[in-house]
Amino acid sequence: MTTHVLSADQIHGFIQEHFPQAVGFAHVTAVGEGRLTIELEAGEHHLRPGGTVSGPTLMTMADTAMYYLVLSLVGPVALAVTTNLNINFLRRPPPGVLLATARLLKLGQRLVVGEVAIHGPGAEADPVAHATVTYALPPG
Amino acid sequence: MTTHVLSADQIHGFIQEHFPQAVGFAHVTAVGEGRLTIELEAGEHHLRPGGTVSGPTLMTMADTAMYYLVLSLVGPVALAVTTNLNINFLRRPPPGVLLATARLLKLGQRLVVGEVAIHGPGAEADPVAHATVTYALPPG
Amino acid sequence: MTTHVLSADQIHGFIQEHFPQAVGFAHVTAVGEGRLTIELEAGEHHLRPGGTVSGPTLMTMADTAMYYLVLSLVGPVALAVTTNLNINFLRRPPPGVLLATARLLKLGQRLVVGEVAIHGPGAEADPVAHATVTYALPPG
Amino acid sequence: MTTHVLSADQIHGFIQEHFPQAVGFAHVTAVGEGRLTIELEAGEHHLRPGGTVSGPTLMTMADTAMYYLVLSLVGPVALAVTTNLNINFLRRPPPGVLLATARLLKLGQRLVVGEVAIHGPGAEADPVAHATVTYALPPG
Repeated sequence: MTTHVLSADQIHGFIQEHFPQAVGFAHVTAVGEGRLTIELEAGEHHLRPGGTVSGPTLMTMADTAMYYLVLSLVGPVALAVTTNLNINFLRRPPPGVLLATARLLKLGQRLVVGEVAIHGPGAEADPVAHATVTYALPPG
Repeated sequence: MTTHVLSADQIHGFIQEHFPQAVGFAHVTAVGEGRLTIELEAGEHHLRPGGTVSGPTLMTMADTAMYYLVLSLVGPVALAVTTNLNINFLRRPPPGVLLATARLLKLGQRLVVGEVAIHGPGAEADPVAHATVTYALPPG
Repeated sequence: MTTHVLSADQIHGFIQEHFPQAVGFAHVTAVGEGRLTIELEAGEHHLRPGGTVSGPTLMTMADTAMYYLVLSLVGPVALAVTTNLNINFLRRPPPGVLLATARLLKLGQRLVVGEVAIHGPGAEADPVAHATVTYALPPG
Repeated sequence: MTTHVLSADQIHGFIQEHFPQAVGFAHVTAVGEGRLTIELEAGEHHLRPGGTVSGPTLMTMADTAMYYLVLSLVGPVALAVTTNLNINFLRRPPPGVLLATARLLKLGQRLVVGEVAIHGPGAEADPVAHATVTYALPPG
């Protein structure tokens, strides 16, 4: 059983206070059972040549979804930092709504590992990108 | 809908013919719906200091499960080769039975991408390792 | 011997024409012998909680350095796309100038693989992040 | 300045005592300045279909080179464990001598990160594989 200690609203509040630059990038739509989903509306400035959503946008989604999942699990730890991120780009997503769902693989004392699937609405079976992300927790 | 063109028995037959060194490492226990599972009995020579299953054994399981999944999907293509493998080691597995389940993320014309979860029997929720693997298919 | 077919100026011209959103993110400071370096001035909007440069900024640097290296090697191919990016975050960089140097590992017909080291000026021995990146070239 | 506390001979002695299964896989040929090189003679049982050295052999080389580098830097810590390994397979190596050189990227209190290049003798410019590997050090 995985216990979440912060709700979607509490995560939004924490981000507004500690990471105001990130407000507006994406918002949490679901959290529970070791998973957390964020939603992004990909617009003009998220695109790359060819008119599809850029790699950096997808990487930022993966990192953000995992950061919010970590917050939901361990509480308001601003200084949790990514140590490793590996991402495979699978399909070229057109502009529009994208969802990223982070799923916990291991919650350790020092490292938290999860995977993130990014896909369009209703298209879980055809992800546009898949990442694994490791966060280090500050000592103490 | 994902179609598999080789069964577990056909994969075993193919390996026996084309990759006899790999026979006996692990065998296929399930294949279908874009997934394939192999089983390994981890013994003395699979261990590392501390008495847990070694990293190379787990990496070989991940690569093997994905190779067999590729075979099941595209048929007997001996020369499919791994281009990238990323693995996170999550828990230290004791000797005994280990299962690795590969799941298809994308079947392209040139690249096949999947993820592999490795765990003990009945312990899907606590994987010992998680990998993403990319295979390149030969042209033609 | 690695031959570069585009100079720094030609890459900047290509980006201005095909990828105007990316102009101003970073500029090329050196290209040659299978390597390419970009420079970024990390300011307020590149920071994360704790006042260090954010992970997405570093990931975007890694992807950009590799994309520009690919352009320098294969010419103006807008539709080259990242297939895999793996990054390790090593040290927390303060705001200021950051350099990312991409180095070619393999130029294949379909895939280009390189590694990218990101560091402060004169601090090559203490990289803040290290990435490996694979680009797929469009057929033809 | 990177200080190594174990020599090649001391590493071989440590492996013989704590990890006898690994003796004979590969031996250390050089250590110093944050780098360590191992050498393997790839024979029949290291090959895969097509007659080239198998992926698991190359992954084991990468993991071993990094483990020995960690030992050389932190001393005889049997229980250092791999947490992440990412490898790109670049060229198909024929049987014969292969060298793997691990290079330190960061020596932290909890994590050690390095990269490993694998190549034939005199062929540093054309690596057959490139990996990044993270080891976790036991607390204390």
